[in-house]
Amino acid sequence: MAEKSGFVPNVFQALAHRPDEFRAFFAYHDALMEREGGLTKAEREMIVVATSGLNQCQYCVVAHGAILRIRAKNALIADQVAVNWRKADLTPRERAMLTYAEKVALNAQRIGEPDRQALTEAGFTEDEIWDIGAIAGFFGMSNRLVNAADIRPNDAFYMLGRG
Amino acid sequence: MAEKSGFVPNVFQALAHRPDEFRAFFAYHDALMEREGGLTKAEREMIVVATSGLNQCQYCVVAHGAILRIRAKNALIADQVAVNWRKADLTPRERAMLTYAEKVALNAQRIGEPDRQALTEAGFTEDEIWDIGAIAGFFGMSNRLVNAADIRPNDAFYMLGRG
Amino acid sequence: MAEKSGFVPNVFQALAHRPDEFRAFFAYHDALMEREGGLTKAEREMIVVATSGLNQCQYCVVAHGAILRIRAKNALIADQVAVNWRKADLTPRERAMLTYAEKVALNAQRIGEPDRQALTEAGFTEDEIWDIGAIAGFFGMSNRLVNAADIRPNDAFYMLGRG
Amino acid sequence: MAEKSGFVPNVFQALAHRPDEFRAFFAYHDALMEREGGLTKAEREMIVVATSGLNQCQYCVVAHGAILRIRAKNALIADQVAVNWRKADLTPRERAMLTYAEKVALNAQRIGEPDRQALTEAGFTEDEIWDIGAIAGFFGMSNRLVNAADIRPNDAFYMLGRG
Amino acid sequence: MAEKSGFVPNVFQALAHRPDEFRAFFAYHDALMEREGGLTKAEREMIVVATSGLNQCQYCVVAHGAILRIRAKNALIADQVAVNWRKADLTPRERAMLTYAEKVALNAQRIGEPDRQALTEAGFTEDEIWDIGAIAGFFGMSNRLVNAADIRPNDAFYMLGRG
Amino acid sequence: MAEKSGFVPNVFQALAHRPDEFRAFFAYHDALMEREGGLTKAEREMIVVATSGLNQCQYCVVAHGAILRIRAKNALIADQVAVNWRKADLTPRERAMLTYAEKVALNAQRIGEPDRQALTEAGFTEDEIWDIGAIAGFFGMSNRLVNAADIRPNDAFYMLGRG
Repeated sequence: MAEKSGFVPNVFQALAHRPDEFRAFFAYHDALMEREGGLTKAEREMIVVATSGLNQCQYCVVAHGAILRIRAKNALIADQVAVNWRKADLTPRERAMLTYAEKVALNAQRIGEPDRQALTEAGFTEDEIWDIGAIAGFFGMSNRLVNAADIRPNDAFYMLGRG
Repeated sequence: MAEKSGFVPNVFQALAHRPDEFRAFFAYHDALMEREGGLTKAEREMIVVATSGLNQCQYCVVAHGAILRIRAKNALIADQVAVNWRKADLTPRERAMLTYAEKVALNAQRIGEPDRQALTEAGFTEDEIWDIGAIAGFFGMSNRLVNAADIRPNDAFYMLGRG
Repeated sequence: MAEKSGFVPNVFQALAHRPDEFRAFFAYHDALMEREGGLTKAEREMIVVATSGLNQCQYCVVAHGAILRIRAKNALIADQVAVNWRKADLTPRERAMLTYAEKVALNAQRIGEPDRQALTEAGFTEDEIWDIGAIAGFFGMSNRLVNAADIRPNDAFYMLGRG
Repeated sequence: MAEKSGFVPNVFQALAHRPDEFRAFFAYHDALMEREGGLTKAEREMIVVATSGLNQCQYCVVAHGAILRIRAKNALIADQVAVNWRKADLTPRERAMLTYAEKVALNAQRIGEPDRQALTEAGFTEDEIWDIGAIAGFFGMSNRLVNAADIRPNDAFYMLGRG
Repeated sequence: MAEKSGFVPNVFQALAHRPDEFRAFFAYHDALMEREGGLTKAEREMIVVATSGLNQCQYCVVAHGAILRIRAKNALIADQVAVNWRKADLTPRERAMLTYAEKVALNAQRIGEPDRQALTEAGFTEDEIWDIGAIAGFFGMSNRLVNAADIRPNDAFYMLGRG
Repeated sequence: MAEKSGFVPNVFQALAHRPDEFRAFFAYHDALMEREGGLTKAEREMIVVATSGLNQCQYCVVAHGAILRIRAKNALIADQVAVNWRKADLTPRERAMLTYAEKVALNAQRIGEPDRQALTEAGFTEDEIWDIGAIAGFFGMSNRLVNAADIRPNDAFYMLGRG
């Protein structure tokens, strides 16, 4: 996506001095975010933006906010979800998804059967439940890495998908 | 290490249904934990046990506690660090390392130049500072994944390295 | 500002059924945000956006984010400050200002002389220190009011000042 | 009330150097606390004392504790509510009211329809629900202002309504 | 003290069904609060009131607030300390004492040598440092016991020592 | 138990300089932990290990972890419960017990009738409910005392009961 937009996301440069980590990071990212089947691409980006907002990760909110706007074809949703997903224009399915993703991000040690049961009742398959947890987990890493290393978003991300 | 001990760690089986994630997870893990140079192997495991204790991740504390005991050749250190690293038998270097790792685990959004400066003053290179942040970040993911999916440690881990 | 843009901010409508509170709210708002002297207009909006981000107030981040972009003549600063002001492009003066504003927003009960002393050392007058505390306090109210009453930002705010 | 008691509350003096804010503050305060209809005067003061206790605001607990004792004609209720309203002598209606007020004070970003629904079921009108949120919000500001500026209660407040 | 006032504190009745615990509780209480030497009696009660306020223990704040007023010969100090000791009329020695007591109450796992060093610099002996920690610890138990069992203060406590 | 193992637990030595507190501490401890009837000995130790883990008390986790292993005749249970009791091999009765114990340890001020009701429904008597609260309360003290005074577990505890 960035390629099409003609710039290299800063996180690529920030990880370039560590080729093995670079390869593993993007292989993992793509395995979760580009995988066939399961959650829609927009749903996955929504998990990223919501949890990255809770973790106060500027890079991930700005970069993945852009991708969410494009994938959801909605110019407003990323800012809504980043600040407070409870006040965003969401379907009941999306609310169930972000309730679980928030708990993985902030309180994973207390997750139990009732949390997964609530997702099943909202229509999620076991495979999709894994996706939500794995994406919230991966950005639990990514947010920490970016905040610890002071990686900043490219200016080009801010306006993508707004118009 | 588990191989030598003759059992397959449960996290392998838990990730097996997702081959791409499996490969990326272990490639990332090995890139951080088995990398030549930088932190000692025992220091890396100490970061894992300390942050996994703070994140209340039973699998990671038990499994990596075993590896820490072996790598540090110290039967007591893992239990000490898992419960409260501030009360463990540590060198000033190790305390500086875990102070930073704890902030990555619990409060990465507030990390700034003074935090990295404290590590430089304690003798850590830039490369080692990256290692600490990256390991604490990776287990920020791993702890969440394991807690969300209820992955439990193999019984065989509990006694490894205890004497 | 909204007038010039040709729309009525939703908070006006939300407060309209309470004329006395409406008048007091906007009199207070203007006394703090439009007052002559002291902090610049951009600095005041920066306090609003930073503390409203911490309080997860979608309305205030989106609406005052727009005003901050216009007043600071900077299309990127609002998104940066809303997600994590520590990672934003700020001067040392602005960092001192937001350090204090954050403490008023999240931990006012622990404020003491050293907090105000740090502002004096950063060049703030007593009058400006009052402004920071009063603005962070006022939006401590406004954020709660808006979140409790589910007041949503007008769509028109999202794109204002983005270039 | 203070007038009748023959002293000027310190908050008047503390705000006097800011005439516009002074006028707006007291206009807002009176619009919420002296308004005809809706919650009883004692209920309003109970919200103030409970949330000011949670925010550790000495001025508001001591000053409004005095008013609560007088309005509720109960010499003990203010100290009970200030320390822990869950352990105070309250009606189910008052418990529902303070459950919501506490959430506005501490966790407004998570308020949603079920919170308001619980108040409706406890017999509160929409108008009264607004009152609770608005009062808890206003003292969210007032508590922060007072704590940031180190405003202390007049000695005369401590004994009012105790005997 | 209660004896002289002619009533039996409710905590006596609440513990009476457990004679062994009753005896141990009051033996421990007296060993800490009535011990010869070390902190003054008023200082000890100040620790109780401050930490019990932080733990939101109504019984302990009301009952020991009364004793603090009497022992400190100060009708206002207990209410000040219970709500927010940082805003109370305290000496630098008392502030150092309550800084440590607060950390024992809320964050004991992070206490280290620098915390005790600060007390030494404020003039406290090792014996007195133990007292502060032991009293804050004992009321860490007492506050939890009382809150779990819903033990309420006698009405007679509220007015004791108020003038 | 330690006697049989031929060593004196460090907490004995740490309290020895305060004979009155020493006697009261162990009288209280034995009244709760050795009392006839009510909870089993293993259940009591499980409460200690779970709450001491939450309070990050190394001494209590290591020492009482040993006793729990012996009393429960289970070499793995202590490490499981210390890190995250939600992920341990527990019966529904034990989960109900630790849910309440955790609330006493971390959030006693919010305990109310529904919390005790849940225990009654899980089959606990009033007497046993008192036990759970009293044990969690006592170790709320003990954990703080030990952390404040840097009391470390004897090396001999680590291997007891491991098989």
